[in-house]
Amino acid sequence: MLLEAFYHVPRDKWAYAYDDHTIHLRVRTKRNDVDSIVVLAGDKYDWDQSYCEIAMEKAACDEMFDFWEAAVTPKYKRLSYAFRITAGTETLYMLETSISHHFPFPTNGYFEFSYIHEIDVFKVPEWAKSAIFYQIFPERFAKGDPSIDPEGTELWGGKPTRENFFGGDLQGVLDHLDHLIDLGINAIYFTPLFRSPSNHKYDTVDYKQVDPQFGDNALLKRVVEVCHEKGIRVMLDAVFNHCSEQFPPFQDVLTNGKESKYADWFHVNEFPARVQNGIATYDTFGFFGNMPKFNTANPEVKQYLLDVAQYWIKEIKLDGWRLDVANEVDHHFWRDFRKVVKQANPEAYIVGEVWSDSLNWLNGDQFDSVMNYPFADKVLEFFNGRMDGLTFANRTGAILMRYPQQTNEVVFNMLCSHDTPRLLTRVGNDKRRLKLAVVFLFTFMGTPCIFYGDEIGLTGDGDPDCRKCMIWDPSKQDRELYDFYKIMIKLRKDHKTLNESGRFRFLKADANDSCIVYERMDDQFHFIIWMNNTDKHQTLSHPIVITDWKDALSSEPVVPINGMMHIGLDPYGYRIIYRKLNN
Amino acid sequence: MLLEAFYHVPRDKWAYAYDDHTIHLRVRTKRNDVDSIVVLAGDKYDWDQSYCEIAMEKAACDEMFDFWEAAVTPKYKRLSYAFRITAGTETLYMLETSISHHFPFPTNGYFEFSYIHEIDVFKVPEWAKSAIFYQIFPERFAKGDPSIDPEGTELWGGKPTRENFFGGDLQGVLDHLDHLIDLGINAIYFTPLFRSPSNHKYDTVDYKQVDPQFGDNALLKRVVEVCHEKGIRVMLDAVFNHCSEQFPPFQDVLTNGKESKYADWFHVNEFPARVQNGIATYDTFGFFGNMPKFNTANPEVKQYLLDVAQYWIKEIKLDGWRLDVANEVDHHFWRDFRKVVKQANPEAYIVGEVWSDSLNWLNGDQFDSVMNYPFADKVLEFFNGRMDGLTFANRTGAILMRYPQQTNEVVFNMLCSHDTPRLLTRVGNDKRRLKLAVVFLFTFMGTPCIFYGDEIGLTGDGDPDCRKCMIWDPSKQDRELYDFYKIMIKLRKDHKTLNESGRFRFLKADANDSCIVYERMDDQFHFIIWMNNTDKHQTLSHPIVITDWKDALSSEPVVPINGMMHIGLDPYGYRIIYRKLNN
Repeated sequence: MLLEAFYHVPRDKWAYAYDDHTIHLRVRTKRNDVDSIVVLAGDKYDWDQSYCEIAMEKAACDEMFDFWEAAVTPKYKRLSYAFRITAGTETLYMLETSISHHFPFPTNGYFEFSYIHEIDVFKVPEWAKSAIFYQIFPERFAKGDPSIDPEGTELWGGKPTRENFFGGDLQGVLDHLDHLIDLGINAIYFTPLFRSPSNHKYDTVDYKQVDPQFGDNALLKRVVEVCHEKGIRVMLDAVFNHCSEQFPPFQDVLTNGKESKYADWFHVNEFPARVQNGIATYDTFGFFGNMPKFNTANPEVKQYLLDVAQYWIKEIKLDGWRLDVANEVDHHFWRDFRKVVKQANPEAYIVGEVWSDSLNWLNGDQFDSVMNYPFADKVLEFFNGRMDGLTFANRTGAILMRYPQQTNEVVFNMLCSHDTPRLLTRVGNDKRRLKLAVVFLFTFMGTPCIFYGDEIGLTGDGDPDCRKCMIWDPSKQDRELYDFYKIMIKLRKDHKTLNESGRFRFLKADANDSCIVYERMDDQFHFIIWMNNTDKHQTLSHPIVITDWKDALSSEPVVPINGMMHIGLDPYGYRIIYRKLNN
Repeated sequence: MLLEAFYHVPRDKWAYAYDDHTIHLRVRTKRNDVDSIVVLAGDKYDWDQSYCEIAMEKAACDEMFDFWEAAVTPKYKRLSYAFRITAGTETLYMLETSISHHFPFPTNGYFEFSYIHEIDVFKVPEWAKSAIFYQIFPERFAKGDPSIDPEGTELWGGKPTRENFFGGDLQGVLDHLDHLIDLGINAIYFTPLFRSPSNHKYDTVDYKQVDPQFGDNALLKRVVEVCHEKGIRVMLDAVFNHCSEQFPPFQDVLTNGKESKYADWFHVNEFPARVQNGIATYDTFGFFGNMPKFNTANPEVKQYLLDVAQYWIKEIKLDGWRLDVANEVDHHFWRDFRKVVKQANPEAYIVGEVWSDSLNWLNGDQFDSVMNYPFADKVLEFFNGRMDGLTFANRTGAILMRYPQQTNEVVFNMLCSHDTPRLLTRVGNDKRRLKLAVVFLFTFMGTPCIFYGDEIGLTGDGDPDCRKCMIWDPSKQDRELYDFYKIMIKLRKDHKTLNESGRFRFLKADANDSCIVYERMDDQFHFIIWMNNTDKHQTLSHPIVITDWKDALSSEPVVPINGMMHIGLDPYGYRIIYRKLNN
C-alpha cells in the first residue's frame, strides 16, 4: 500500500457531524491500492463497552485516489477512532500519530472527534435540497412598466453592451410568472435589485431601495408574496464586498477625507481617496475605482450591512442570500451574517460566490453553499467531447469530495450564469449536447439553477453578450427545448431520490469512451442514467438481473436479457430508467 | 516525483496570514523526492504587473515527507498562486485543480488566498513568546496559612492520594515567590483556585470565589500584583466544560428537575437527573457523575462563563487562561470567549488543553496555543533511548508542521504535568537524561513550562503520585539540578534567538545513532546544540568554517579545525555554542 497517499485529518470535510448524532468520516488512499477499510470506533472514557467496527464504503475516486466514507453514531457524542486498512494479506492501522502493522492500544494516538455539539453541526435548509432555481437578471428578463425605463433605454432585444439598458423590471417578472410556474421551477435567484447606476447593479448606491428602474420596495414585496403563493422561493444578491462610488458614505469620504465620519468605512490607504494613474488610493473590487471595498471589520459597517441582510428578510420574507465576491469579505463578518440571517429566518439559504476551493466557508459557521463553477466547467468539457468518460468520472469524484455532504446536497450547480457564456453557446449550439448536460445537471447531487432564457434557446458569448433580452415571442422560442426542460424539472421534483437523498455512483466510465452510465439510489428508488456522448448510435450494456425497470419519462418497461441490460441510444441520446425498491 | 504525496490546500496551516501583510505557504512532497519548489504568485486582477516568483525552503521533514515553506507579501492583499516543482530535469506545476507538465495559464485553476483581512489574522501575545512558565498545583506547592487548612489536612510531605489534603495555599506562594524569582521564570500557570470540594479543584462550585483553603479573592489579587511587580505573568485554569455536582444551578436541577430554571444549563437526557448503574442521565466529563457537563450553547450559560472569564481579567489583571478539556466545549463558545477575553486584555494568552490534533482551534479565532503533550512524549521517548536521532528528527518535524507558525512560537511545551508522571521519574531517575530533555525544551521553539518541583528533583508516578508536596528544605532539594535549571532559564531569556525568532533545524540526526546536533538561527545569532544521548564518551563533528564561536554557558571560545568543529561530550553530555552574526 502506498502510505504517502493515505490521508485523513480529524476536521472539515474529512470528519464532521452530519447531524446531531452522526459523524461522517472520509479516508483517501491511492487509487485501486486498498481492498477495505474499517473504522475502529469507541468512547475513550469507556472503550471496551463502546467499541464497534464500521466498514467504510468507496464513495468516489479521482485520477490518483480512492475516497472512502463511513457514518458513525457514537452513543455519548464522543468518538475516538482509528482505521484498519487491508490490501491482500497486509493489514495496516492508521492513527493520528502513526501508521503501523500492529494493533494500536486504545486510544493512545487515535483520532478524536471530541464531542458532537448541536450548535456546531452544519445545518442547511431542507427546502434547498429539492429546490430548482431560475436565475433572473432583472434588466433583461421582462419589461412590464415602460414608464420607469431609465433614460436612453434601447429597444427590447437589441445588442447588449456593458452600459446599455433595455428596461426589464419587476412588473415584467410578475407578468411572466406563469412562464416560470409552467416551467416548474420553485425558486428564483435575482441578481441585484437595489439602486445602482449600472445595468447589472453590482455597485449599490442604496441598499434599502429597489432601483426605480425596476419598481419599488412594495412591488418587490408583492413579487415575493405572489411567488410564495405559487410555491416559489426567492433569493437576492447581497453585494457586501464593495459598493458604488456614489454610495453616500463614500461620497462623504471623497468630500471630507480623513475628517469624514465614514473615513474608516473603507480601506483608504492614503488620503485623499482618489484614483491616480488607474490605481485607487483605497482598496477596491478588482482595480475598479468605482467600486470601493467595504471595511467589514468596522463594527459600524458590519452593523449597517447586517441590518440590510435582516431588513429584506423581515420586510419581504426573503428566502435566501447569494453573496457576491464572498471570498474577499472577512470570516468574522460572515459568521455574524449567518447568525443574523438564520435568526431572522432559520430556513434561509446562504450561497457564496467563490470560484475556487471554498471549504473555508463551508464548515457550518458561514455559508450553506457556493456557486459550483467547477461543476459547470467539468460537465461542459465532457459533453463538448474534450474528455473521456473515465476523466469525467474522476473530475466528478473530485467535485463530490470537495465539500461535506451537507453542502453537496445544496451546492449551487449551474451550467452558465451572467458571468459566463450561455449554455447553448458553450456547447457549440448543439442542442443534443446541451440536453445531455442538462440531464446530468438534473440527475446529479446538488441544487440546480437555470439561467433565464436557457430553456428557450437563448445564446450568447461572455458578458455582456450572455445578458441578452429574454425572448417572449413563442414563435421565436425553442418550444421543444422548453418542453424538455419541463420534463426534466418534473422528473427531478417528483423524486426525492434525484433531488435529495440518492447516492451517486458511476456504473460505466471508461478511458477512450464517451459513453457513461451512472446511478442514483436511496432506500426507495433506484435510477440508472445512460448517456451516449458520441455522434454514432451506441448500445450500452450493464449486468442487471432484476427485471422490473421502467423508463422514467415514458413509463415503458425496460427489461434485461439474460442478466444484461442493453440500452440502444441515438447519437447524443440518453435514457433514464428506474425501479421502486421493495423496502 | 510521487504525485500522490504532494499536498497543499489553501487554508489552515498550509496557507495562512502570518501578519497583516504576509502569507505563509507550505507544501508537502515525498521525502527526498523533489529538488526545489517555487511559488508563482500574483494578483488575479492584474497578474502581469504583480507576478513574482518566490523560492520555497525545506522547513522540516518527517518519516515520509518533506515540508516546504515560503512567505509571500502581496501588494494588494490578494494572492493567486501555483507551485513549480522540480526534480532533476522534470518540472511540474501544481494548481488547485491539477498537477501537470505545462505552464498553467494565469490564473485559471490557481490556488487563492482571497484577501488578507486584519481581523482574521491570527495574532498571539508577544510576551508569551519569551515567557517561561512555572506550573503550580496550589494544594501542594507551599503552605503559608495553617489557619485555613481544610478538615483532615495531613502532614506536609505525606503520600498523596486522590482525596487527601496537605494545605498548600496562596500565602505559601507569596512566601516562596523569591524561589521563583531566583529561578528566573517569568510566568505562573495555576491549576484551579476556585471553590471546589476536591484537592485538584477541577470540579468548581463557585467560579467567582477563591477556595477558602487557598485564601480569598483579595489575596489572589495581591499575589498577581506582586507577581506583576516582579515581572511575572499569571495564567489561571478555566474549567468551563463541566462543574461540580455541588454547583448551585446543578443542585437546583437535582431538586427541581425539568422545572428548574437551570434545566437547560446542562445536557440532561432524561429527567430526573441522576446516576443509575454508574451511568448519569445527563452528560458528564468522562463518566463522572459528579462533574456535569455545561450546555455552553445555552446563551445564559455562555454569558455566565464569559462573565467569569472577564471578571478575573478585570478583577486581578489576569494574563491568560488555560482551558480545561477544551476540545469538548463548542466552537461558538470559544470564538466568543476569545472576543471577550481579548477585549478585556488584548495581550491575554489562551491555551487549550487538547491532547490530540488541535488545528480546529488554532486558526486565529479560538486559542493561541495548546498544551503540547505530543512534544513531551517524543522528547522523552528519545532521551529515554527508545528512538534514534533520525526518528526523533522526523517526529520533531511532524510537530513543527502540525500548526501555523504563530502557534509554534507560543505552543505550551512541557515535559510533564499534574496529569502525567514526573519528569525525573519518566527518565528512570537519570538526571543526565533529564538534563538533555530540559536543554532541548529550553532551546526548542515554543513556550516552555516547568512543573513545580521538577527543578529540585521531585519524583512521582502518575496522578496522584505526581502531585507530591514541594520540598522546601534546601538540604533535601537537588541544588545542583536547581542551578542547572537557573542557567538554562537565563540562557533562554537572554536570547531572542532561542526564545522567539530563531528558526530550528537539525544538523545531525541519523539512523541507529542517538547523538544529535541542531541549530537555532535568526539574523542576530546562530546557536548550535550538541547532544550525546548515549552512555559512552563521543566526539561529534560537523563542517564549520567560521571561527568566532563561543560556549554559550562558559563563554569560552570554541574553534573548528580545518573546517570541522569537533565537540567531545561525556555520556549524556551536551554543549551549546553560539556566535553573533554580522548583520
